[in-house]
Amino acid sequence: MSDTPASAAARGWLEQLAGALERADVDAALACFGPECWWRDMVALTWNIRTEEGREAIGAMLRAVLPTARPASLRLVGEASARDDGVIEAWFDFETALGRGHGHVRLRDGLGWTMLTTLAELKGHEEPAGRRRPRGVEHGVSRGRRSWLEEREAHVAAFGESVQPHVLIVGGGQGGLALAARLKRLGVPALVIDRHPRPGDAWRSRYRSLVLHDPVWYDHLPYLPFPDHWPIFTPKDRMGEWLEMYARVMELDFWGATECRRATPDEAGGGWRVEIVRDGRPLVLRPRELVLATGMSGLPNVPSFPGAERFQGVQMHSSAYAGGGAWAGRRAVVVGSNNSAHDICADLWEHGAEVTMLQRSSTLVVRSETLMNVGWGRLFSEQALEAGITTERADLTLASMPARLVERLQKTVYEHVARIDAPFYDRLRAVGFLLDFGEDGTGLSMKYLRRGSGYYIDVGASDLVADGRIGLRSPVEVVGIGERSVRLSSGEELPADLIVHATGYGPMNGWIAQLISPEVAQRVGPCWGLGSGTAHDPGPWEGELRNLWKPTAQPGLWLHGGNLQQSRFFSLQLGLQLKARYEGLPTPVYRGPAARA
Amino acid sequence: MSDTPASAAARGWLEQLAGALERADVDAALACFGPECWWRDMVALTWNIRTEEGREAIGAMLRAVLPTARPASLRLVGEASARDDGVIEAWFDFETALGRGHGHVRLRDGLGWTMLTTLAELKGHEEPAGRRRPRGVEHGVSRGRRSWLEEREAHVAAFGESVQPHVLIVGGGQGGLALAARLKRLGVPALVIDRHPRPGDAWRSRYRSLVLHDPVWYDHLPYLPFPDHWPIFTPKDRMGEWLEMYARVMELDFWGATECRRATPDEAGGGWRVEIVRDGRPLVLRPRELVLATGMSGLPNVPSFPGAERFQGVQMHSSAYAGGGAWAGRRAVVVGSNNSAHDICADLWEHGAEVTMLQRSSTLVVRSETLMNVGWGRLFSEQALEAGITTERADLTLASMPARLVERLQKTVYEHVARIDAPFYDRLRAVGFLLDFGEDGTGLSMKYLRRGSGYYIDVGASDLVADGRIGLRSPVEVVGIGERSVRLSSGEELPADLIVHATGYGPMNGWIAQLISPEVAQRVGPCWGLGSGTAHDPGPWEGELRNLWKPTAQPGLWLHGGNLQQSRFFSLQLGLQLKARYEGLPTPVYRGPAARA
Repeated sequence: MSDTPASAAARGWLEQLAGALERADVDAALACFGPECWWRDMVALTWNIRTEEGREAIGAMLRAVLPTARPASLRLVGEASARDDGVIEAWFDFETALGRGHGHVRLRDGLGWTMLTTLAELKGHEEPAGRRRPRGVEHGVSRGRRSWLEEREAHVAAFGESVQPHVLIVGGGQGGLALAARLKRLGVPALVIDRHPRPGDAWRSRYRSLVLHDPVWYDHLPYLPFPDHWPIFTPKDRMGEWLEMYARVMELDFWGATECRRATPDEAGGGWRVEIVRDGRPLVLRPRELVLATGMSGLPNVPSFPGAERFQGVQMHSSAYAGGGAWAGRRAVVVGSNNSAHDICADLWEHGAEVTMLQRSSTLVVRSETLMNVGWGRLFSEQALEAGITTERADLTLASMPARLVERLQKTVYEHVARIDAPFYDRLRAVGFLLDFGEDGTGLSMKYLRRGSGYYIDVGASDLVADGRIGLRSPVEVVGIGERSVRLSSGEELPADLIVHATGYGPMNGWIAQLISPEVAQRVGPCWGLGSGTAHDPGPWEGELRNLWKPTAQPGLWLHGGNLQQSRFFSLQLGLQLKARYEGLPTPVYRGPAARA
Repeated sequence: MSDTPASAAARGWLEQLAGALERADVDAALACFGPECWWRDMVALTWNIRTEEGREAIGAMLRAVLPTARPASLRLVGEASARDDGVIEAWFDFETALGRGHGHVRLRDGLGWTMLTTLAELKGHEEPAGRRRPRGVEHGVSRGRRSWLEEREAHVAAFGESVQPHVLIVGGGQGGLALAARLKRLGVPALVIDRHPRPGDAWRSRYRSLVLHDPVWYDHLPYLPFPDHWPIFTPKDRMGEWLEMYARVMELDFWGATECRRATPDEAGGGWRVEIVRDGRPLVLRPRELVLATGMSGLPNVPSFPGAERFQGVQMHSSAYAGGGAWAGRRAVVVGSNNSAHDICADLWEHGAEVTMLQRSSTLVVRSETLMNVGWGRLFSEQALEAGITTERADLTLASMPARLVERLQKTVYEHVARIDAPFYDRLRAVGFLLDFGEDGTGLSMKYLRRGSGYYIDVGASDLVADGRIGLRSPVEVVGIGERSVRLSSGEELPADLIVHATGYGPMNGWIAQLISPEVAQRVGPCWGLGSGTAHDPGPWEGELRNLWKPTAQPGLWLHGGNLQQSRFFSLQLGLQLKARYEGLPTPVYRGPAARA
């Protein structure tokens, strides 16, 4: 088999780098990289999730990690490809002292431009799948052997009572369940608790018209993909069914109707003392590791408008909105203009309410159709699958782009979006709707990563706004609430029987403050956001989601969250970190040059 | 791309045959076949499942079906392969007037030896999967649109009450559920009823130690394969969980706790009048098509031994045996020596009972391990998957062998088995266990297809028999039952606190007699069995399972059953026949030359 030119170049580069790494010759390794370069490592070398930017930072990282991580045997996987602009892209596999990993590199002018290394498995602790799958029964008959059901029932009776979980996962949405599935396969005893009775109830309890805004190819959970007739946009109750089934067939330990009251670091032994209430019964759990999978949003933001207590109608936060059935012919005001606000306005309109949206600041709107074509399509679509881009390959491709490059690329994408959907945006502007593509024009993905809010993926409500079927006031603030009205900064007084505060959520780290303590929340610092210095995402720049899926400043405390793609992909990275600790493997965490000084 | 010699030969042959078929030149088509030849068609040409044996039978079939079926465009798929013995094997796709199909051919000396044609889909009625998957939500908001949950709830409330199912499936085991899933994707309204409360309960209610005797690769249900950590041998309760989950996420219409009392052909309008009792409430259903998926076994065979009514211990048929928990230190006699008898003896021994097996006639025993290596391994294993043999490909490969050839090949396989497991068989013979490999030495698969009984797949009980931990009397008949004993034809009187009659089941067509009428059962004739003329499978030779998955002598009556592989594979063939009738497509059934005379 003869190499293509691109493969030959990639193979040569990998050999050169591998040699330098194996000799722990950092200067020789740095000589493989160009003047602009990034090395993103996920757990494989740093036991952290970090992007090193520039040769100096990469050098500092390598000097710190090479002695223990010992990356080696970098081997090209498949053929490298040459892009039109001359950049060569290549997949590779590699080993470290403790594990095996997948990597990706982009070469520009023969030098490393972007580099990704991710941990895929720990040696000697591979998942029991495929040729390693269990037999399910030991052939041969012996007295006292237990059936699967008897084993399972005995485990369920003891777990969390006489047998403590190693990992406690608070929150049983897609994040908690995906992580629990990873830990199950990795053999780490984990318990998921959720205040809802059944897995999937967090989805079921949302407003009736909710469907996932991301397409099915993006949404698979680990190990058990949706069947190929699954709809592109999963309705929320169907998602609830899937999650409930998932927890059962993956044999997850899930306690529903269970609330986490308080978690306290156990200073003596390490680990945690966690007070919970299960089905009304108080109980103390003593897990070694605590994962908050309570959602990337914190607690609901309910603004306190003057006069709110006098209101004679019904007021609620968007998270409590169930459906518009009761509001036909009545007047509803929705405060806010992001995803929930749009969906709720549409739902109220569908049910015959007279509904007005109050836009307080500009919103990023992008048509779902457009997002599929210019956004996900290349990686997450039938076309991508037919081109051989599996879900795992797509996830790693996403991961291969450092955030700074994503910013650069997304700007171009949204210039394109503005052009192709100009008539759509013109119609919204014509009714006074304030639009943005992020303050630096970098679009939806960056807004999502920086602040997790400020956008609407249009699945139909924008038409209603543009047509005036959903009333709009913009820009406007609520200055007070009357007995049957909302008073606006414009001076207008809007009659209202219903007020829905689609005013978002507090920061993710509010969960830490609430469940552990404000001091720990303070020490851990901001969660989510890249440190971009844009609105709601103060610096300094980190280039990775802060505190997500990696060690925090609080030993034994982990955060897991995000959409289904993130839940799927990062559950493996987080799962491997927890597995390594469960097995007592050395996990020296690299926290950057400053931390080592 | 240049052909390999095998591909060139296959391509040339397919072109020649396609030309003859397209010209409806039967003689030219027959000239493509060798002196020994079979053409097995599944629904594609004959709207039936038949194996034509020899040029004459193939000629009769082609003359009858070519004018309407119009097979054409036979195209090689992938590369053909040449076996060591010179036989060339090739996959091909083709079209008919109404559908598209997959085929397989073996060429010997350049002429057709075995030919398979199967229907894969109906033109214009393709399953909504992949690029055809539904969106799940119509973007754009309109008043009165219903959410997925509202649609589903409305459907569930009306279905079987104000809206009649087109197909009623009696029996919700793997067969009924797999067929319901096919029909769901094909858009044919189908209702499954089962006397157990939940899907999977038929498995759950069996004896505690039961695990599937077929390996996981053989057992996937359509559309939703087991994840890759699923154990090789699925424990029965876990199978129950999977089936319950399957019914939910596939959105099947399943009525549990529902008994079918009587089904009557509706002479006037076609279709059926079916009396059922659902949760205690009598109801009449009026489906167009009735599928009995009540299992390949009929009603339990409970022999009436003289004195049975006087017995002071506990007697039961094997189907009612739940577990040996109550029998420690007590004396159990199990009548029979096939799968259930062995499993139940082992379970009783595990629980400390003193157990004796009564073997009445010789039994085919094959070690599970051996079966995996010499039987399933080539098609259903990790190795097969790694070699690119998908489940669908494996199913079609199985289907590509006419029964006569399977007999020939299996004889060789079991000569091999007898050699490699000689010490194992010697140990069984030493304690007096009577062994056979079928009366003509053709082994397990043929015994399964001919009579569905007479064998044990050893997962450990044989060791207990050989060691004497399970007592054995053989050959022996029960001649009577005492108050606390079983009297044997040998003159021995065995003390007994428990008697389990592992005496098998009546014929499948007993279900027709019971649920419809003895007259209809008589008209339909034997179900299952190939007509081999061996024990429990009287002739004449049919070379296909009788009355399974194809039109019966009773219009609108269908039988579906068998193991998981059969449930998966044949549910598509049966589903397509039901779909064609639902859509009113012409489905002229070819029943052989005699039937046309």
